[in-house]
Amino acid sequence: MLRSLITLVALTFAFGATADEIPVPEPASKLSRATADSGNRQPFIHWPEQEAAASSKLAALEAQTGKKPNIVIFLVDDMGYGDPGAFGGGEMIGAATPEMDALAAEGIKLSSTYSQYTCTPTRAAMYTGRLPARTGLIRPILAGDTLKVNPWEGELTVAGLLSEAGYHSMLVGKWHIGEGEGMRPHDVGFDEFYGFYKAQKEYTQAYDQRRFPDLVLDEDKLARYQSIGSNNDLIYGLADGTTQTVETIVSIEQMAEGDRKLRDYTVKRIAELAEGDKPFYISHSFMKVHADNFPSKEFTGASASKFPYRDNMVEVDTYIGDIVQALEDAGELDNTFIFVTSDNGPQMDSWPDSGYTPFRGAKGTTWEGGVRVPGIAYWKGMIEPGRVSDGLFDLMDLFDTSLALGGVDTSSLPTDRYWDGIDQTSFLLAADGQSKREHVYNWLGSKLAAMRMREYKAHLLVSLAQEKFLYIDMAAVVPTGLAPWLFNLYVDPKEEYPVGHRMNAWTASLGAELKAHGATFVQFPPKDLGL
Amino acid sequence: MLRSLITLVALTFAFGATADEIPVPEPASKLSRATADSGNRQPFIHWPEQEAAASSKLAALEAQTGKKPNIVIFLVDDMGYGDPGAFGGGEMIGAATPEMDALAAEGIKLSSTYSQYTCTPTRAAMYTGRLPARTGLIRPILAGDTLKVNPWEGELTVAGLLSEAGYHSMLVGKWHIGEGEGMRPHDVGFDEFYGFYKAQKEYTQAYDQRRFPDLVLDEDKLARYQSIGSNNDLIYGLADGTTQTVETIVSIEQMAEGDRKLRDYTVKRIAELAEGDKPFYISHSFMKVHADNFPSKEFTGASASKFPYRDNMVEVDTYIGDIVQALEDAGELDNTFIFVTSDNGPQMDSWPDSGYTPFRGAKGTTWEGGVRVPGIAYWKGMIEPGRVSDGLFDLMDLFDTSLALGGVDTSSLPTDRYWDGIDQTSFLLAADGQSKREHVYNWLGSKLAAMRMREYKAHLLVSLAQEKFLYIDMAAVVPTGLAPWLFNLYVDPKEEYPVGHRMNAWTASLGAELKAHGATFVQFPPKDLGL
Repeated sequence: MLRSLITLVALTFAFGATADEIPVPEPASKLSRATADSGNRQPFIHWPEQEAAASSKLAALEAQTGKKPNIVIFLVDDMGYGDPGAFGGGEMIGAATPEMDALAAEGIKLSSTYSQYTCTPTRAAMYTGRLPARTGLIRPILAGDTLKVNPWEGELTVAGLLSEAGYHSMLVGKWHIGEGEGMRPHDVGFDEFYGFYKAQKEYTQAYDQRRFPDLVLDEDKLARYQSIGSNNDLIYGLADGTTQTVETIVSIEQMAEGDRKLRDYTVKRIAELAEGDKPFYISHSFMKVHADNFPSKEFTGASASKFPYRDNMVEVDTYIGDIVQALEDAGELDNTFIFVTSDNGPQMDSWPDSGYTPFRGAKGTTWEGGVRVPGIAYWKGMIEPGRVSDGLFDLMDLFDTSLALGGVDTSSLPTDRYWDGIDQTSFLLAADGQSKREHVYNWLGSKLAAMRMREYKAHLLVSLAQEKFLYIDMAAVVPTGLAPWLFNLYVDPKEEYPVGHRMNAWTASLGAELKAHGATFVQFPPKDLGL
Repeated sequence: MLRSLITLVALTFAFGATADEIPVPEPASKLSRATADSGNRQPFIHWPEQEAAASSKLAALEAQTGKKPNIVIFLVDDMGYGDPGAFGGGEMIGAATPEMDALAAEGIKLSSTYSQYTCTPTRAAMYTGRLPARTGLIRPILAGDTLKVNPWEGELTVAGLLSEAGYHSMLVGKWHIGEGEGMRPHDVGFDEFYGFYKAQKEYTQAYDQRRFPDLVLDEDKLARYQSIGSNNDLIYGLADGTTQTVETIVSIEQMAEGDRKLRDYTVKRIAELAEGDKPFYISHSFMKVHADNFPSKEFTGASASKFPYRDNMVEVDTYIGDIVQALEDAGELDNTFIFVTSDNGPQMDSWPDSGYTPFRGAKGTTWEGGVRVPGIAYWKGMIEPGRVSDGLFDLMDLFDTSLALGGVDTSSLPTDRYWDGIDQTSFLLAADGQSKREHVYNWLGSKLAAMRMREYKAHLLVSLAQEKFLYIDMAAVVPTGLAPWLFNLYVDPKEEYPVGHRMNAWTASLGAELKAHGATFVQFPPKDLGL
């Protein structure tokens, strides 16, 4: 993988460098405002005043509550950037999302939040604070994949670090980063797990005669598929090794009720945890709205559109409201940082019964449609209502931000590896806070494909397949050649018109930033899990 | 024109009917909930309860204020659906629009508001309550066009009708529906006019050496262009015939300040009119953000993007805020119905320094990108804050809605012609009010091209040109053939996947609705202005 990265960088910039000679020139003029605290951390923009303001705000709250704040992260599966009403969808596409819209209106709406190009990489990045290309978790782990090495070997998670710092950490819902012993949520730092190891469709496809008749109605194929032995259970697990099957999914109707059960569990546990002394970290990771979508009984036909995806958006939105209500009922809302997002752009293989993005491309690509996701941060009394910001936010920043909120000093983390997240506490909490992030890197598996920097997006690799239906189609991905394809997302949010180096003053500077990022992989060689 | 309409309908549905034989069958099952009050009015959905609720709300206000409400309509030129933050743009595209966003948040955001496909047709439709295909105002009037007949001959305007009912009616800004005597705003019903007859670029192009060197630097061509004799003035006019030149536009810098002057005028007049007894009707029609965009001195670089279009969005947004503030300062905000919209989708000939729409197509097409515009209705104390609706709203509905607010009984309007608007007062004012509109017809010049009905869009004619740059390119418009192209906009807002008659139950019903609409042109023959 390292070789392909370097080859790419070399090709793109017409350098003949080998891996250890990769040149990182200082360009004549730099657009970047970021500087590095240390050689193994992502450089960031320093805003000392807003950091002081945020720190004193947090200290005042802690003086009042006597403990660190709770953290609740809502991760919706495959929700498109445009799906929530606050981001342009909602009523317009026949699926009102009043709960998410209210959180956005009463919190900060982040219009430049970035995920990885697909599910497992995003989740791994969020929990480890490191790019998938570093940890090796570069693509979804599929039923039938045999992992030769435990991808978690030697990795730290935000859940584990917060647990050590006195939190109760809990994952409710989807995991999808390994189901073998040692790879499960409760093996890698979560004190508690209640959820599913895989994506929604992996539970339903063996029962979905309408979409997969070749699998469901052919006894031989079905038997072979079932012999994979992948886990089909709703699991309850604890860090002490307890691993129980709550129920085994044996029908579509049962899976359709999955998110309701997850909602019930989180609501119940919030009430219980509020009674204890520990602050809590909850990753509430929906199974919905991943294809294939089957709304629960209660929400069938609940959207104006009536299509399953749209009904499921209404269901997910309602559950977010229920869980926020549970926090309020437990008296914890003032002391809880809430974040709502998606793990990638909309998946299109069920299109048009799928998510909506106004951008080019979809899940599986590094076009904006694949990696730009809704981002909402809400904290009653701590985040000023009505804020909107286009400041860059990478979902990996939730790693550092959560640790900062939990009082974990990230400068004490191991120095034998590279850390890609940035603590964005001050961006979110300070009045008129600015993002500390200057770059977002968009990797496509083991390839560095693109970079967002300010309003510019520079692509080294572009997918030229029929974009709507593209799904991790590397066969259609080609290098841009002598210079990156450069887009100005403020005037061309749909990435239709590469402005080229003659029309933008910063191409050389952006190129140098890309090379500097590539060089961190030379200094800190990535893992290869054989994925 | 009549012939081409009928030919089209016949072709599309494979009927051999002649003009007076056009068949309007009742389909076996009807999707439409609309019924007609009379044979010369657009059928609409009756919601008796909400109409009663809205009426009593209005009566209560009138009892309190002792007069009819003011009406202020902000019409931004060529603003894209996605430009305001509330509709998905704003900060995301480097041009924050806090004023419009606040009106949307504190009023009702209408995600299915429709204009005509271009400027003059939309304005004519808004002011006359009749489709451009009926009045003959089917395309922009260009400098150099010789109009053989006065397009206003025999037409009534909302401004004139309200003036007769005791209002002071005023147009501030762009007109673009004729500049000869008898065709000017103050000739056709507006008590007062302060503005420009033409589009922004028509004032600047003769000075725009950078974009039009062939015109500006060639003395012969420039002299011929100037010999057209089109009016280049900022005009002050009164219904008594007074017509004065405030100033003549002789530079780009001067035009760039145009909207500031219009803002100043409206602000001043609101303060003065508030002193009088009459309620007022103001159409504040911006020159911006029509190409070519030149921000005023104050707003140059005011947007995060710094591009001229984006700066002008910030300028327009600020001025909207100033005028709303003027209403508040004058004590009139509680008694003023405010509407914000655009006259069509974004024009793309200056792209990427142009507007943003998430939809397919642009100004000049009947794809959603050409005809779907932002719609915000705000009325402090009368419209419940925070509402969002995808109910259909045609800008022609402002004709009937304004008349209803002003107490003009539209059933007393002439019966020798067809009226296309619908009074939407109850939709906007009643709590949870529903739209009374079941159909929006999208005409492309003299051709009936498409219809929106509920979440469906049926196209009889589609443009297959390179859509981004298309501008009234009839050469690339083709009939869809045996059946309409049918899209479900809830699952496919970008009109990518025509579902076809086999996948939608309502194709026959939609076809019958289209034919019924076509038949109104047989019963009430349209005018032909030779445009």
